[in-house]
Amino acid sequence: MEIIQAVRWTDDGSGVRIIDQRLLPERCAICELRTLDDVIDAIRTLAVRGAPAIGIAGAMGLVVSLMPYASADRAALVAKAHAAADAIRTTRPTAVNLPWAIGRILGRLENTPGDARAVLDAIREEATAILDEDRAMCRRIGEHGTTLLRDGARVLTHCNAGALATGGIGTALAPVYVAVERGLHVEVYVDETRPMLQGSRLTAWELGRAGIPVTVLTDGMAASLMRGGHVDLCLVGADRIAANGDVANKIGTYGLAIVARHHDVPFVVAAPTSTLDPETPTGFDIAIEQRSADEVRRVEGMLTAPATVCVYNPAFDVTPAALVSAIVTDRGVRRPPYDFRARPASEH
Amino acid sequence: MEIIQAVRWTDDGSGVRIIDQRLLPERCAICELRTLDDVIDAIRTLAVRGAPAIGIAGAMGLVVSLMPYASADRAALVAKAHAAADAIRTTRPTAVNLPWAIGRILGRLENTPGDARAVLDAIREEATAILDEDRAMCRRIGEHGTTLLRDGARVLTHCNAGALATGGIGTALAPVYVAVERGLHVEVYVDETRPMLQGSRLTAWELGRAGIPVTVLTDGMAASLMRGGHVDLCLVGADRIAANGDVANKIGTYGLAIVARHHDVPFVVAAPTSTLDPETPTGFDIAIEQRSADEVRRVEGMLTAPATVCVYNPAFDVTPAALVSAIVTDRGVRRPPYDFRARPASEH
Repeated sequence: MEIIQAVRWTDDGSGVRIIDQRLLPERCAICELRTLDDVIDAIRTLAVRGAPAIGIAGAMGLVVSLMPYASADRAALVAKAHAAADAIRTTRPTAVNLPWAIGRILGRLENTPGDARAVLDAIREEATAILDEDRAMCRRIGEHGTTLLRDGARVLTHCNAGALATGGIGTALAPVYVAVERGLHVEVYVDETRPMLQGSRLTAWELGRAGIPVTVLTDGMAASLMRGGHVDLCLVGADRIAANGDVANKIGTYGLAIVARHHDVPFVVAAPTSTLDPETPTGFDIAIEQRSADEVRRVEGMLTAPATVCVYNPAFDVTPAALVSAIVTDRGVRRPPYDFRARPASEH
Repeated sequence: MEIIQAVRWTDDGSGVRIIDQRLLPERCAICELRTLDDVIDAIRTLAVRGAPAIGIAGAMGLVVSLMPYASADRAALVAKAHAAADAIRTTRPTAVNLPWAIGRILGRLENTPGDARAVLDAIREEATAILDEDRAMCRRIGEHGTTLLRDGARVLTHCNAGALATGGIGTALAPVYVAVERGLHVEVYVDETRPMLQGSRLTAWELGRAGIPVTVLTDGMAASLMRGGHVDLCLVGADRIAANGDVANKIGTYGLAIVARHHDVPFVVAAPTSTLDPETPTGFDIAIEQRSADEVRRVEGMLTAPATVCVYNPAFDVTPAALVSAIVTDRGVRRPPYDFRARPASEH
């Protein structure tokens, strides 16, 4: 089974190598980020996307953007690092992983004595650790989550919370990959996930590449599919999980959770620990990014609505904890009532 | 207020003049149907769509396809009519209006004495009556339905059940048009309605043309919109309503109804009497058309999923009567429990 790797260092270590997700599924292009502008642009235009991958790319990108300052004063490097960190951190407001990963880099920077070069070596190590930990976390999410899948399971997912969204084998898709590795037959249905079509463009592509049977439907078809008895489990990722278990995830997740509950289909969220946000008491406290009207008025640039019509285009919605049957993290499977007020101690 | 007319005779009466809905919203092109192939093609490719408009175009199209036989034997005309009727009737399986309208033309044909020309005159009169009755029905649906709308109402609709779908001012949109004519302020939200995008392409276009405020959202955003308290009423059309009140309508309607119920938003279906099907006991008895995979894999011809990925693409879904707050027909507003086992006597 071939599972792609979405983010890694370039071979010479001077850049961040990503799969440019804007071009999938027609073309699998590689993009190398070397400057602050490259990094910000890649995150803002969704060349790299998925909360964990954004955090990893942001942290690694922060490091590569500072490499020109290897011979500078330590103070100059620190000042540059804070300015770059602010710029990267504010590129997308909803995912908690980005400020979390950037915060780790800044913390390591502050705690590392010595000159600029020593600091750069340390923060590169920290960024590599974030990537490696994410890979390990995905694997553990997969191992815990796969206990929810029986042989022959038919899973409905939304958006892309797969390998393309993380440093490893994904979050929502990790249990599927692990199940298939262990010889189970699993079939995946995926909502196309308008407006950006991450389901049809990305999830269908990476599952197809891994040889896992996948069927695409439009977002409005999920209820009909469930009524037909074709779905055993919904499995989605998360961009942020509040302390009470409310889940911010790609727009459409909340409607899917309502529809799953109506059909008594378990609705499971899979996400790394870094997605849990003890500082956010409930979903109502999560800022929801509103994106450009043209994402809805156009598909791949082509007009599909009157050119100036008003548009409602939140990037995410919030699924109340009451609709979430289980939350799978790298630490295990949690069932309601959820309480994530304390961030778990680091698992390393 | 300018409300468009989707189907009418050409000025010389030799053809059926339709707005080619495949080209909206970029271009408002007029199409003239003169042969049986024209008619079948227009219905199958969705140049004309919407259950009532399909019925009208089918009936009028049947008449124009028979005009070359004005000087033929009566028996030859009758044979041609039955063959053409069969071909048109089976073009799309779900809407009841098409076989119903075709049946009316055949009935009139059988009951008209005289030569081919006399029969042709009679069936043209019948087709005109179907169009005129539909216009009157839309108007009455609007008048009954508008009682459900207060000044300032925010209505969420799905697909296009507007003027473009009927001979008149629409079904789901008729109450909106009548309310606005009467000086009320009404705002409409519309799901884009993948895969064919009738909401963003058609409903947004015709409402915008009529000067009614309209906002487009993707199908997965409706739940978030309702949770935000932005929707007072859902108002959708129907392709077929079973005797028990189960409603077959554009795919996505069922999910919307579940989500509306979850938020205590009234879910109202508006449809002409011809949509009621006393012969179909429940929604489970309604045949659901499966359409081509490329409708989902592509948007306006452009690939948005792996080219050979499997697709689930039913054209319609069935909303159980239990989720329907009211059914508005030209005869009034019905509330549950519904019982449409007896087709109402003609209202003329």
